Amino acid sequence: MKIPKGMHIPKGFGFRVAEAAIKKPGRPDLALIFSEKEAAAAGVFTTNKIKGAPVRLDIDRIKDGRARAIIVNSGNANVCNGQKGMRDAREMARIASLGLGVDEKTVYVASTGVIGTPMPMERIRPKIAAMAEDASKYTAGFEDVARAIMTTDTFQKYASTSFKLDGREVRIAAVAKGSGMIHPNMATMLCFIITDMRIGRAALNLALKSSVEKSFNRITVDGDTSTSDTVLIMANGLAGNSPVRQSSEGYALFSRALDAITTELARMVARDGEGATKLIEVHVKGAKTQKDALRGAFTIAESPLVKTAFFGNDANWGRIMAAIGRSGISIEENKVDIYMDKIKIVGKGKTTGKDSEAGKLLRESKEISLVVDLHLGTGSEKVLTCDLTGEYIRINAEYRT
Amino acid sequence: MKIPKGMHIPKGFGFRVAEAAIKKPGRPDLALIFSEKEAAAAGVFTTNKIKGAPVRLDIDRIKDGRARAIIVNSGNANVCNGQKGMRDAREMARIASLGLGVDEKTVYVASTGVIGTPMPMERIRPKIAAMAEDASKYTAGFEDVARAIMTTDTFQKYASTSFKLDGREVRIAAVAKGSGMIHPNMATMLCFIITDMRIGRAALNLALKSSVEKSFNRITVDGDTSTSDTVLIMANGLAGNSPVRQSSEGYALFSRALDAITTELARMVARDGEGATKLIEVHVKGAKTQKDALRGAFTIAESPLVKTAFFGNDANWGRIMAAIGRSGISIEENKVDIYMDKIKIVGKGKTTGKDSEAGKLLRESKEISLVVDLHLGTGSEKVLTCDLTGEYIRINAEYRT
Repeated sequence: MKIPKGMHIPKGFGFRVAEAAIKKPGRPDLALIFSEKEAAAAGVFTTNKIKGAPVRLDIDRIKDGRARAIIVNSGNANVCNGQKGMRDAREMARIASLGLGVDEKTVYVASTGVIGTPMPMERIRPKIAAMAEDASKYTAGFEDVARAIMTTDTFQKYASTSFKLDGREVRIAAVAKGSGMIHPNMATMLCFIITDMRIGRAALNLALKSSVEKSFNRITVDGDTSTSDTVLIMANGLAGNSPVRQSSEGYALFSRALDAITTELARMVARDGEGATKLIEVHVKGAKTQKDALRGAFTIAESPLVKTAFFGNDANWGRIMAAIGRSGISIEENKVDIYMDKIKIVGKGKTTGKDSEAGKLLRESKEISLVVDLHLGTGSEKVLTCDLTGEYIRINAEYRT
Repeated sequence: MKIPKGMHIPKGFGFRVAEAAIKKPGRPDLALIFSEKEAAAAGVFTTNKIKGAPVRLDIDRIKDGRARAIIVNSGNANVCNGQKGMRDAREMARIASLGLGVDEKTVYVASTGVIGTPMPMERIRPKIAAMAEDASKYTAGFEDVARAIMTTDTFQKYASTSFKLDGREVRIAAVAKGSGMIHPNMATMLCFIITDMRIGRAALNLALKSSVEKSFNRITVDGDTSTSDTVLIMANGLAGNSPVRQSSEGYALFSRALDAITTELARMVARDGEGATKLIEVHVKGAKTQKDALRGAFTIAESPLVKTAFFGNDANWGRIMAAIGRSGISIEENKVDIYMDKIKIVGKGKTTGKDSEAGKLLRESKEISLVVDLHLGTGSEKVLTCDLTGEYIRINAEYRT
């Protein structure tokens, strides 16, 4: 499914952003997403055992499967701040709920940024109150939310689409932020999805988990998984379609659209990996098992030596062979074929002499498809990553300074 | 055990080096290590499923447990070169054996460098023949061997020691090279250990495996494991001590000395990680199990975000917490203490407010001890690593160009 140009904003959602100088002044760092009507909700969260206070709050609240609003900030992740951290997260939701006049339990919180620094609540409180107090005066667009949640991201990430169901237009839109610590199980990845679809909570939850597995859990930037990963979806039903369950015809339509949105955003996140100059799709096929294919693809996609070779426009297939070799999956050296786009650089485990041709391709491309065919079975998986550059080091060595 | 200054070269070993312009001219890239008398031998090799031809040759030959010589080259790893690769490795050993007048099966080969490029045998053959033809004319020192096997290493790595046994002086000496692709299971790590100890093959093998596990398998530079890792030990017995078995008193003495040598070389390899400016010892203690301690230590030591923070002199303990959190080991956030040298930066999972003090320490130190105390049990493991720098990227992006 192609993601159309332009924004298809679901009915009944509003947005506000504000500047609270959480890390430093000069840019919006707070955002509010609000639904006029209570929405069904589902979420997927970091698997890291160290979880930010907002994540713990949301994991608890999502059990009810309902949401009215999400309050998000960038600049501070509110992680490892002890009991004060949890009090602050709760207070952020409470202030928003009071202003909006909604049940506190239906307000979710997400925070991204530095770990271990207390939230500057004295600056945050009045801004949340101001954003929430006049719910009818939505002054921001969804793309402004995308901007407010950025940390080291270099561009705003949003996508939307629509489809017909029961003669009604159904819309889905989402914003996301990357871009360091991106890894399967979502890394410092925030994604907020809104739709006016009418859909049951169980079906919504199932669709979200399946989409995340195919999209955000197939990207890696540096192998680090964050403490704050959050994907939340709100479905307010205002499209007016008849209620959709897992067995409904509409479920497949919705899942396809949701997959398209999350996949598009996952690509954006990988492309915008810290310091990245290239998007690399690693496709391991012909693996003995599906599990082998995924493990092989991730081992290649995470290898610093492979990633720096891509940065250096060096079709260094030896490093790719070495990565598969150490991944622990079944391989037979003399069966391995490797392609960069259409150029076959390795045939039956040996060079085809096309390194310079592939090097030229690398110099001229911003997106590369790397295919490793093991010729052992039918296992096939794709993982997205980016190259590893001096700029990554600069960003991450200087992040707090 | 302290490694003494100066070289303690075991009796009856000789060395030669030569320049064969394997990758480029201008430096020695071939070395020969030779024993006057047949030595007991043992080896540990890469666990990568893609193995260089020399590695496969050595794995086969080491079964006999005897050695007369090792022929080593840098500049070309002779990996993924199909049947020609294996023919070339065999020929390198054969030429050396003919010149030395020894059984071909007692000659080992090790190669390090680029993968997938055929060996320039026309330049290598005459040089090996010349090195081997006059075995009595040893023109090189052991430190010259250390130099000839370097690739991106910035300094020669060798260590030696001696101890008394049965009133005889026993000597152990070793050379090693790193420095990219360093990881547990030894990465592109070559290490050749020689001793004049008289020791049985079984005991020698046991002592080597135990030492490697405690030294080279506790270092990581970039998480990549190479196709060519080789540790070989030769014990020619010329010290004249009574034969040592595992149950002998001499075994413990020997093991201690061997541990000291391999640990010293492992530290050098980690310190000389590509582009590194700091040596970092990651010590996870108080873990629920020993396995947890090792996994936690490696997850921290391999985290690009942690490693770039060290490069940036940023005591970014949040990234350390995040790394332990995703490592999969048992933790309780509010029990974790973290120290950099003597400075406690995290107490019970929260900041102690000493980030700038620790930052000052990082700016002033070339060696840092990072201690993470989980307060859950008695599991304790140490892993050595280095910081991740822009220079690492430069080296690895430009390696083949």
